[in-house]
Amino acid sequence: MIVQTDSVRFDSISLGGGATLGPVDVAYQSYGALNGAKSNAILVLHAFSGDAHAAGISPETGKPGWWDNMIGPGKALDTNKYFVICSNVLGGCRGTTGPSSINPATGKPFAMTFPIITIGDMVRLQRMLVEHLGIRRLLSVTGGSMGGMQALEWAVAHPEMVASAMPIATTARHSAQQIAFDEVGRQAVMADPDWANGDYYDKNLPARGLAVARMVGHITYMSDDSMREKFGRRLRNRVEFGPDFDTEFEVESYLRYRGSQFVGRFDANSYLYITKAMDYFDLANGYGSLGAALEHATARFLVISFTSDWLYPSYQSLEIVNALRSRNRDVAYCELNSNYGHDAFLVDVGEQTELVRGFLARVAREEGVQ
Amino acid sequence: MIVQTDSVRFDSISLGGGATLGPVDVAYQSYGALNGAKSNAILVLHAFSGDAHAAGISPETGKPGWWDNMIGPGKALDTNKYFVICSNVLGGCRGTTGPSSINPATGKPFAMTFPIITIGDMVRLQRMLVEHLGIRRLLSVTGGSMGGMQALEWAVAHPEMVASAMPIATTARHSAQQIAFDEVGRQAVMADPDWANGDYYDKNLPARGLAVARMVGHITYMSDDSMREKFGRRLRNRVEFGPDFDTEFEVESYLRYRGSQFVGRFDANSYLYITKAMDYFDLANGYGSLGAALEHATARFLVISFTSDWLYPSYQSLEIVNALRSRNRDVAYCELNSNYGHDAFLVDVGEQTELVRGFLARVAREEGVQ
Repeated sequence: MIVQTDSVRFDSISLGGGATLGPVDVAYQSYGALNGAKSNAILVLHAFSGDAHAAGISPETGKPGWWDNMIGPGKALDTNKYFVICSNVLGGCRGTTGPSSINPATGKPFAMTFPIITIGDMVRLQRMLVEHLGIRRLLSVTGGSMGGMQALEWAVAHPEMVASAMPIATTARHSAQQIAFDEVGRQAVMADPDWANGDYYDKNLPARGLAVARMVGHITYMSDDSMREKFGRRLRNRVEFGPDFDTEFEVESYLRYRGSQFVGRFDANSYLYITKAMDYFDLANGYGSLGAALEHATARFLVISFTSDWLYPSYQSLEIVNALRSRNRDVAYCELNSNYGHDAFLVDVGEQTELVRGFLARVAREEGVQ
Repeated sequence: MIVQTDSVRFDSISLGGGATLGPVDVAYQSYGALNGAKSNAILVLHAFSGDAHAAGISPETGKPGWWDNMIGPGKALDTNKYFVICSNVLGGCRGTTGPSSINPATGKPFAMTFPIITIGDMVRLQRMLVEHLGIRRLLSVTGGSMGGMQALEWAVAHPEMVASAMPIATTARHSAQQIAFDEVGRQAVMADPDWANGDYYDKNLPARGLAVARMVGHITYMSDDSMREKFGRRLRNRVEFGPDFDTEFEVESYLRYRGSQFVGRFDANSYLYITKAMDYFDLANGYGSLGAALEHATARFLVISFTSDWLYPSYQSLEIVNALRSRNRDVAYCELNSNYGHDAFLVDVGEQTELVRGFLARVAREEGVQ
């Protein structure tokens, strides 16, 4: 199934920080068909380095979307039943306005003059897209990692539009360790002289710094176990042991490859802005407590975490679940067994599919979706 | 107690890789007095970024040694009873010959022409030092992290000289995840243009790259819990929340500070050589299995790990213990409760002190130490 990326332009968006940004383009894809009542729409929210291409085959790259194993006919997000939308986030670099977009006031890329954005701003822009599509209420909002943060923000900030939310492998706020890993990535980018305070668009990209940042990320996305199974201590260049600087462990060449690949598809300034948005995200902000925030949510919740995910450990999902329970909200929670670490929500989708399918069927029934 | 760093020069050392390096300087400190039988010596082995200054106060910096809470009168390594030695490792940058030392053949620093070194080479040089001091048998060899690897290597490669070994928070070989973290650090250093293929000694140091590498290290040395307790989500510049690029979380400024501090005391090329030595270390190499390697050891073992140490998790200590038990070797193992992560062996030494004190008393008694 070849899918096209659509785009819509809005005159402006008012950001939570007070600034106004405009015009704003939003890149999005959709799968399945919107029903007559426009009641079968599910908004999928991508993780940090994701994009609007969640499912199907890209005509440009020939590659499947990042959640193609979850979205499609008969899959967890069944496109025979549901209309699934996914858009690139505000601040991104895959079609939606971000630091690499041209600032109409100057004719040059915004770079570091792009306004600070938050998870709340990303969600506000998604709301504009959803309303543009004529949808008044989403059957569900779902995503893993940063996508899960957006799902939580949707449920609290726009409760009347959210029938259900499925935050996966995520948190209501970054811990010190999560902030620390993000900060290392930012420092790696900014340590690269080619970053040049963000003004690199007509020059050399900060490729080395961005690659190092991505390497750190990849370690945190996998588990100790999954790295052992995938690489162990195998050498790439030869079988015989002998230490020198030329011989590579397979895990080294893998990380270098993934790091260098990332440079071709991701903007370094987007890296800075989006990680900052994640670090500043705290669902309790302005409410006093997580429970007080989630009291505003009226959605049914399905919260999922994975045993070997040490980047977004299960205790962070339990904080969300406990806060929801403390306000008598409708919540189911499952910790799924997986060795794949944080990547599990992307690659180990067997049990996740069963849970999501059952949960959505119930919500669709209760919402009267035909 | 002010301590001086001593130094001894050897004509040359034969490295495991076949090369000969010379002359070789070794920087070391010692605490307590060697008894007449020269039977009360304990060799302390430092971790990756440590040095010979393990205890007492440095006359230059006024700072205590890295294990001052473990070494001294009445402490775990009781200098009223034992003669404690600690030397900077081969390849280091704190007085022992390493990449930053002058190559006598060229009159310039070795830089990346320094030969590849292994944990085995570090231990060979330590053996030369110990024999230079007239000591034929060590009452104990001990250290945490990379120091523990050296303790294991000592016990297997030079069994006749080792009455006991206390490897702490360590492993018999690096996992894929541990190699991956080291590789990120190396890539961060080498991504800095000031690294200049290692020839930076009369120019700008690769300060930005080395600082990023150290930041990654610090995250792995702490635990999720200890970072939460120390930093949480507290902001440094102001109390009121508001996302922008100027406001820092405390954890960010801490990591930046530790990163920049490291640049002043550690050589970037030593960083590359020593992390490679750790990654290539595999106690089973040349023996076929870990059990077959440890069968050569005749020392009594005390193996210690810490519950929250996710860099050198307890299962790696248990692999050592199980291999020792499979060969009927004398081994005690304790997993100590601590929230301090890998740093626990340096900072949370209460229970560790009791274990080490009791173990050493027994070994001294059995060895007839007066």
